[in-house]
Amino acid sequence: MTKKKAAVLGAGSWGTVLAAVLEDNGLDVTLWARRKELAAEINRQRTNSRYLPDIHLPEALKAVDSIEEAVAGKDLVLFVVPSHSMRAVAKMAAPHLGEETAVIHAAKGFELGSLKRMSEVLEEELPASNSERIAVLSGPSHAEEVIRKSPTAVVVASNHPSAAEEAQSYLINSYFRVYTHPDVTGVEVGGSLKNIIALGAGLTDGLGFGDNAKAALVTRGLAEMARLGMAMGAKPITFAGLSGVGDLVVTCTSRHSRNWRAGHLLSKGIGLEEVLKRMGMVVEGVKTTQAAIGLAEKNRVEMPIARELYAVLFDGKHPRQAVEDLMARGKTDEMEEMIRGERE
Amino acid sequence: MTKKKAAVLGAGSWGTVLAAVLEDNGLDVTLWARRKELAAEINRQRTNSRYLPDIHLPEALKAVDSIEEAVAGKDLVLFVVPSHSMRAVAKMAAPHLGEETAVIHAAKGFELGSLKRMSEVLEEELPASNSERIAVLSGPSHAEEVIRKSPTAVVVASNHPSAAEEAQSYLINSYFRVYTHPDVTGVEVGGSLKNIIALGAGLTDGLGFGDNAKAALVTRGLAEMARLGMAMGAKPITFAGLSGVGDLVVTCTSRHSRNWRAGHLLSKGIGLEEVLKRMGMVVEGVKTTQAAIGLAEKNRVEMPIARELYAVLFDGKHPRQAVEDLMARGKTDEMEEMIRGERE
Repeated sequence: MTKKKAAVLGAGSWGTVLAAVLEDNGLDVTLWARRKELAAEINRQRTNSRYLPDIHLPEALKAVDSIEEAVAGKDLVLFVVPSHSMRAVAKMAAPHLGEETAVIHAAKGFELGSLKRMSEVLEEELPASNSERIAVLSGPSHAEEVIRKSPTAVVVASNHPSAAEEAQSYLINSYFRVYTHPDVTGVEVGGSLKNIIALGAGLTDGLGFGDNAKAALVTRGLAEMARLGMAMGAKPITFAGLSGVGDLVVTCTSRHSRNWRAGHLLSKGIGLEEVLKRMGMVVEGVKTTQAAIGLAEKNRVEMPIARELYAVLFDGKHPRQAVEDLMARGKTDEMEEMIRGERE
Repeated sequence: MTKKKAAVLGAGSWGTVLAAVLEDNGLDVTLWARRKELAAEINRQRTNSRYLPDIHLPEALKAVDSIEEAVAGKDLVLFVVPSHSMRAVAKMAAPHLGEETAVIHAAKGFELGSLKRMSEVLEEELPASNSERIAVLSGPSHAEEVIRKSPTAVVVASNHPSAAEEAQSYLINSYFRVYTHPDVTGVEVGGSLKNIIALGAGLTDGLGFGDNAKAALVTRGLAEMARLGMAMGAKPITFAGLSGVGDLVVTCTSRHSRNWRAGHLLSKGIGLEEVLKRMGMVVEGVKTTQAAIGLAEKNRVEMPIARELYAVLFDGKHPRQAVEDLMARGKTDEMEEMIRGERE
């Protein structure tokens, strides 16, 4: 039997780890890195020292910096690039995709400007024959734990059940449990918005507010995610699942989370530009906060946490004032607040 | 204006802190401790060294060991006793309650044997005139943080809106945000069952499974809580709120949580009896696991996490085997699992 062939586009921590998972599952994997030096480091040293310090990668993993070489002749192409480069990478990959090639993406965030979800961007840029084969991978999955084979449960969602099942068949193994899911919109909205709440959790923790306050933030954050998601056509129960509350919990409570770390730095009075410089990696929650303000207006949904975060990130509002303003909101009945989410 | 008078029954950490909150809110508060020595310590030294080390209590707080003295002539009586003593304490308090006395309870758990919720036990034991005034207090609220005035958000639920509003008016202040809630069953079921998941989270953490695995456990735990709650008449959205996911998150991720700590000790191969001895406090999750097995059967709901915990606690199953059996469950579609929760 010939091995199935997969390309993973994007050699950040998550892309590199997903490539290792596919390799572990018996696929022949090519990892595309934008930077030639990173592809060379992976091929020569079996490391990705910037994104995955101290990790030795599988010997068989090939890295390339040509997208044509990565994509051509593959059974499966996995897009694991930041939200702001999804369209450009999809455009580059499109001419080289086979008609039968399955597509998975594992990106979080929305396209700024168009406010489109990542699967919508892919549908627009990829050939029609591939657009019925798009699935999205999401869920509570720190790359640093998956590469160590720590048990992890995630979802793959698609509008087409057969695409979700195919994606599942490539990715699932004994430590990486993959569940299919029918609600693409809910999975993408949850996975994206949780990064805003994680920024807020980093802020709250950095200001010394304690676990009670963080639990309140996470609870309201979940309601805020679900409110926007439902207005965009998602099913509410999706937010109670792995890609909703599961991913939210891990992102808000784990020190591995880069969005939490960025929020923590912001709480110390460090400006956004300096925070992003120190992080040295994409912090999706920042752009997602901008997108959320647009989506809230478009869908006429109130998103107080995103608004306060926006004020901190872009209008110089003091983090403590933002958290206090959130805590002091006026409603007195929890259900009223969760369902309507209006401000008094 | 004369001060309103309140009794708090139960001088564990949560009862003592709630007494301090009421005192802070301008009420005249009497705290009932079962043990004469504890009442004397509180009155003489302004400390409760066993349950709240390093905390100095308000000067005006009075402690008594006579339940008659505590309850007689009060506008409000708060029951903060372990679930297994709720009925006995309610029986003792009942003859001394005024007709107009408001009642709040902040206990977690079910009565073993009858499998009743705590508000049902109170309704049975208290005079009819008080039973329309019962509210339940729940939500993410580590006592150690509330006593330090760290911002906290909780709910008070009642079948009678006026009772929830009255409870709210006594308890709310600038650091203790109290929301009213209409779903007593949901609030009580969520607050109780989360202790089972916290035991499981302590186990998982103690075994070194990582944050991804814990997020999966919390997500499945939430679904399990909601499944049983809905079968008992709760509203599903309650589990997405402060008393559901909020309390679950704080209990599963905070080192303050005694149920998490008990699970952590169990993971090291220490037997239940020895764990409870070392804890030196009531670990509600242990009895709640027993109750949950009964409730699952009575309501024909599958509760795999409670079942695995029961096997570890009472049948000597190895914790690692229990966690692995949970991870390896057969369903492949998340929605199918969340809604039906059956085992293959």
